[in-house]
Amino acid sequence: MTQFINAKETLVTEAIDGALRTAGGRLARLDGYPHIKVVVRTDWDRSRVALVSGGGSGHEPSHAGFVGQGMLTAAVCGDVFASPSVDAVLAGILAVTGKAGCLLIVKNYTGDRLNFGLAAERARARGLKVSMVVVDDDIALPDLPQPRGVAGTLFVHKIAGALADEGADLDTVTQAAQRVIEGVVSIGMSLDTCTVPGSPKENRIEAGKAELGLGIHGEAGIEQVDFSGAHDAMEMVVDRLAPNIGPGSLVALLNNLGGTTPLEMAVLAEELVRSRIGGRIGWMVGPAPLMTSLDMQGFSVSLLPLARKEEALLQAPVAPWAWPGAAPVGPVAVLPLPDGLRPIQPMPSKSAKTQALIKQCCETLIAAQSDLNALDAKSGDGDTGSTLATAARSLLGAFDHLPLADPTQLYRAIGQELSQTMVGSSGVLLAIFFAAAGDASASGQTTVGALKAGLDRIQQVGGARPGDRTMIDALFPALEALPNGLAVAARAAREGADLTASITRAKAGRASYIAQSKLAGHNDPGA
Amino acid sequence: MTQFINAKETLVTEAIDGALRTAGGRLARLDGYPHIKVVVRTDWDRSRVALVSGGGSGHEPSHAGFVGQGMLTAAVCGDVFASPSVDAVLAGILAVTGKAGCLLIVKNYTGDRLNFGLAAERARARGLKVSMVVVDDDIALPDLPQPRGVAGTLFVHKIAGALADEGADLDTVTQAAQRVIEGVVSIGMSLDTCTVPGSPKENRIEAGKAELGLGIHGEAGIEQVDFSGAHDAMEMVVDRLAPNIGPGSLVALLNNLGGTTPLEMAVLAEELVRSRIGGRIGWMVGPAPLMTSLDMQGFSVSLLPLARKEEALLQAPVAPWAWPGAAPVGPVAVLPLPDGLRPIQPMPSKSAKTQALIKQCCETLIAAQSDLNALDAKSGDGDTGSTLATAARSLLGAFDHLPLADPTQLYRAIGQELSQTMVGSSGVLLAIFFAAAGDASASGQTTVGALKAGLDRIQQVGGARPGDRTMIDALFPALEALPNGLAVAARAAREGADLTASITRAKAGRASYIAQSKLAGHNDPGA
Repeated sequence: MTQFINAKETLVTEAIDGALRTAGGRLARLDGYPHIKVVVRTDWDRSRVALVSGGGSGHEPSHAGFVGQGMLTAAVCGDVFASPSVDAVLAGILAVTGKAGCLLIVKNYTGDRLNFGLAAERARARGLKVSMVVVDDDIALPDLPQPRGVAGTLFVHKIAGALADEGADLDTVTQAAQRVIEGVVSIGMSLDTCTVPGSPKENRIEAGKAELGLGIHGEAGIEQVDFSGAHDAMEMVVDRLAPNIGPGSLVALLNNLGGTTPLEMAVLAEELVRSRIGGRIGWMVGPAPLMTSLDMQGFSVSLLPLARKEEALLQAPVAPWAWPGAAPVGPVAVLPLPDGLRPIQPMPSKSAKTQALIKQCCETLIAAQSDLNALDAKSGDGDTGSTLATAARSLLGAFDHLPLADPTQLYRAIGQELSQTMVGSSGVLLAIFFAAAGDASASGQTTVGALKAGLDRIQQVGGARPGDRTMIDALFPALEALPNGLAVAARAAREGADLTASITRAKAGRASYIAQSKLAGHNDPGA
Repeated sequence: MTQFINAKETLVTEAIDGALRTAGGRLARLDGYPHIKVVVRTDWDRSRVALVSGGGSGHEPSHAGFVGQGMLTAAVCGDVFASPSVDAVLAGILAVTGKAGCLLIVKNYTGDRLNFGLAAERARARGLKVSMVVVDDDIALPDLPQPRGVAGTLFVHKIAGALADEGADLDTVTQAAQRVIEGVVSIGMSLDTCTVPGSPKENRIEAGKAELGLGIHGEAGIEQVDFSGAHDAMEMVVDRLAPNIGPGSLVALLNNLGGTTPLEMAVLAEELVRSRIGGRIGWMVGPAPLMTSLDMQGFSVSLLPLARKEEALLQAPVAPWAWPGAAPVGPVAVLPLPDGLRPIQPMPSKSAKTQALIKQCCETLIAAQSDLNALDAKSGDGDTGSTLATAARSLLGAFDHLPLADPTQLYRAIGQELSQTMVGSSGVLLAIFFAAAGDASASGQTTVGALKAGLDRIQQVGGARPGDRTMIDALFPALEALPNGLAVAARAAREGADLTASITRAKAGRASYIAQSKLAGHNDPGA
């Protein structure tokens, strides 16, 4: 079993029940399992024309996902890729049809036509008004007298559904559905087949190929074509569609056949809008999974010329979440980058004392380069010394533009300098340390307070705490001791650093991925 | 190339543009391609707390799909599975943050923490109020000090987003986000890895196995487990989650990691509700793709104990379509089957003349059994004669319960009889023929008118027209001739049937799949 199901036989009934669990009481099913699988609206008083659709399962969210105000009144679900029975269709009709009658929306497959057709007769024999339309939007084969019904069916659901919701009578709703069917064209393309539950997957499409003109039941496409990317793929699809569409503004429905990622679908949307018919597409539905073929990695495009009246019907809000709405297609809105991306350049200033302190720190770090590298080699990639020395050398060369006399600005400037010259996570953390210290200093904190604010921030951002075998194990005790003078702080830092040799369970940083035995007895180089 | 993309390098920028085409002007991007990929609300006046999230791409609809009123103000997008740069995050913050400040919602990955953290410092240096929370909802490893941030992040977006939309201040929004983070737990399971654009797919999980405790970047799960179906899979997930959740009512988020079919996700929803924690789940978000891992065939469950106040925030409507809403979880609503599924049993009646006519028809069909089978063998499976003979024999045995004296009821009864005794498409079509004739007869049509109504209906349902090499080629001329008497009609039928031998391009029915050369010279057996 390669799917999250329990058994092929119970797949559809369990899935319907799962969907109904979260329908908020708006949907119910008829008590006819396993043969009669019908999902109906519960917020329905039979005062308007009912819309019943359905067919084989495996096309979710079609059709049960579109039951709700403004779209379908009932969905009759067969097993995967299998037409529902006449009794199931009849049960759906009888459950929702009142005096206003019922429109059956059927995709053009023999089984569906016959079973919905006979159910319609039985319902008529009961005195119900039932009409039926057959959707045949697939243009994969130009001369086929019986084109398949595919994703264009959604336009019929939406436009007929909106009309029925407005209270239109059965003839009006049926005629509107028929007009949509006469106008809509669809074609699909796929890079892979689908996995039919209970059957091994057929690997029909080799790498570098795509199938064009496929249906929604895993059947082979009309032709295999060379595949060279999203742009050319959409060009091929548009080439097939363009000769078959009437004049006027278009609404496009970009359907995910199931297994295509949202990133791919968005690229295809962009290619469709950029294509030679893109300028005519006023509205787009999707990209979204609307009429899927299980997990097929493919898409389809449906196009419908749209009259003004139908625009309003297409836009009308609906209850089913699966309907993504029809969005106006427009240019990509681009806003200028905000001011402030460049760091604020501080006013340089002089302070011999501060310069001497920084110089001493930097020279100490440069002198420790090879020792620190050797230490880092025990638990990392042996570059802690080089990383710190490089940053220290840059800082030594930056005295003429540093605001040495202004502690607040100096913290910020050092943070800025380190973020540009010191690579790796520790560079970012030290940049954050000094930037946060600058903020705290700006709000009046003392030196110790400002540095502690920096420490707090790198603990928050980096996620390490004292005892996690990181630089914090030296920094934390040093800052605690700093009110007692630099020498005391330095001793505390040394003790803290030495303690890391006994911490063999690193909880953060790269050392957390190293075996404990390799860490024992060696100080953490960051500390 | 196995995906609908143009190039790995342009994938994310093209996808963002594709998404913005249909955003209806509500979203824009910053002018910073290719390095700065930031999607922002355009319907935003900076009067409230801004919410900025983001991270690597490949998790769509996260994060750009959740930008909009009630959720995120901006999304900062990295390349696939790669953290966005500090500059990109800073651009996002600066673009949307006003006096009310900004909350950064970051998933717990080192790159994201550091880059968002440093960008926050830079924004603070500009005088902006910025706070940051880190989501670490993954409980795959019980003792990991740095759990990953996965789909539970969506709860933070939603609840903080609703609060910010209400006008809450930055501290309030941040604290609410932090409370969600402390409460939410998540775990994922997968049957397959994902396809990283530009890289071959790793086939790590063998058949019969699943990975439990995985992240959203294609990394291996914490363990491989035996997979034996949706029920056991959800049990394992619940076993991991249950010890980690606090008391009270729960909201569950059932996330599709990308490549799982809606049918599977619905089965998993049902299993989650039926599980031992199902009774505590008051609300469910999904099943839906919310935080995906490209095309991974997997799912994750996130659970959050929910206070009353947070229920309202979870329910608050939002602009982004990708958010499916939080639905109350309840029992499956089941309605009784409607009355009327059983056919109406007509009152039997006698008519020697009608009985004689039917008897003669039936005996003719039975006598023609082997001839018709032989004819059918030329273009089909050789059973037309048997099918018709079986139905005829049944009808011969049914005279004592047929309403022979009432033409309307008789048409309907014959239709009913044929639908039960005659297999195949032609049985359904003839059942429809007689049922429709009955309806027409009921509304006062003559015999000819009633039969023509039946013919119209089977043309509509079956899709065949005269000349398509079907039973209609005999039926149509016969009914045209019937006003001139039965003998004339019979001749017309014979001529029509004989003409089918010259129709070599069948347009409907099974013969449409047969090579033309095999049809020439043979009558259609249905005709």
